[in-house]
This record gives sequence, structure tokens and C-alpha cells, in this order.
Amino acid sequence: MSKLNDQHIADTLQAYVEAVSGDDVEKILELFTADAVVEDPIGTGAHQGTEALRAFYQIAIDSVELMELEGNARIRDKWGAAAMLAHPKGVDLVIETLDVMEFNDDGLISQMTAYWGDRNMVAK
Amino acid sequence: MSKLNDQHIADTLQAYVEAVSGDDVEKILELFTADAVVEDPIGTGAHQGTEALRAFYQIAIDSVELMELEGNARIRDKWGAAAMLAHPKGVDLVIETLDVMEFNDDGLISQMTAYWGDRNMVAK
Repeated sequence: MSKLNDQHIADTLQAYVEAVSGDDVEKILELFTADAVVEDPIGTGAHQGTEALRAFYQIAIDSVELMELEGNARIRDKWGAAAMLAHPKGVDLVIETLDVMEFNDDGLISQMTAYWGDRNMVAK
Repeated sequence: MSKLNDQHIADTLQAYVEAVSGDDVEKILELFTADAVVEDPIGTGAHQGTEALRAFYQIAIDSVELMELEGNARIRDKWGAAAMLAHPKGVDLVIETLDVMEFNDDGLISQMTAYWGDRNMVAK
């Protein structure tokens, strides 16, 4: 039976922002498939697979103080998408991000694409 | 010279929500390429080309009282993404949507994918 349902996707998006806010990159990686593809932000090149994601997300958790959802997640079928706010360490700004995630039948994230650019780095 | 830049994408996203809030479907269609692909919500099948988009968006403007951005649009390169709130006519609920748009070099929307589901139809 598929683990995938709306509540699971909502819970995973919340677990994702909490894991990015934390200091254990493995908590992030356990949300993803072993061959997941992450592009953050879009247009900068994809990271694929656990090792590539570990390197990418280690930098992320080292630089992010707090990641939080902005508003409610949008969920349909195998997709979850949400506006998010990333608060970097040591600077008085917020990065407004927006992540679109695709899940597999086991409830793991198989693809994540993040949308944000220069205009989304705003003063607190 | 390309018409595509961050400000143009921001202006187009604002023009889009205003056009969906209005009553002239042509105001929406002029934002899109002639062969644009729209899937709203994702997983329900794509509409491609001006005639298909006219039929789809005529239903949208007939049923939506007001469409507005929720938070700031996320913009990078040829992509714009934003959480949105759709207020349907005649019912006390809000549909929380999230649109991801890709633009061509002329500054027209070539693809739009919307993310929302049952959990995103919420009481006002």
C-alpha cells in the first residue's frame, strides 16, 4: 500500500523545514530517495543522489538559522509545493524561497526544485 | 533584446492575478504564447494553445471573484512562482493556489503549472 497521501506530504514538508533548521544533515536525507534530484535555485544545476545531496544540504544547514513555511503547503496527488522563508545565520535578511517537491509511492521526495532569486533576498 | 527580466516577470504575475480577477479573458491570453501549456491543478491534464486556454480561463474568470498574490513572487531567470489566493464567487472559501510559470525570451508565459488540492480549499 502506498504511503503517499496528502497528510504524509504535509508532514514531510514540515519535517523538511525543521531538518533544514537543525544541524543533522541525515534528517534531511532520510526524506529523499537515494537518486533524488535537487535543484536549488532552479537554473543553477541539479544535484542528484544521496552523496550530492549530503554535500549540498550540509552547506545549507551550516548557513541557515531557521527555515519555515510561509502560508499553507499546496498538495495534490504526488506533489507538494510551498512558499518558505529561510533565515540565514549572521545577516539581517530573509530569503523567500518556494519549493516544489515530487514524491514516490513510498512517500519519499524524488525531486525538489526551488524558486528564488535576487529579489527574494529581503531585509528583515 | 530580450524583454525578459525580473521586473517584467513580477509585473506579469501581478497582471495575471488582476486579469483572472477581471472579466475579459483576452487580458489573460495576451500574457501567454500562442502554444503555451497550462495545467491547473497539476495532474488533471494540460491545456495547450490559445483556444484551449481561452476555454479554460473563461471558466476561471466566471467562477473567480478575486485572485491575489500571497506573499512575494519568487523570480529567477525565466521562471516566476508565487503562492496565490483565489476567492470564488458565491462561496465563503478561499482556494490556496501556487503557480509556477516559465517565460520565453519575448516575456510571454510559455508554461504554467498550478499546485493545489482538497486541503487548499479553506473556509474564509
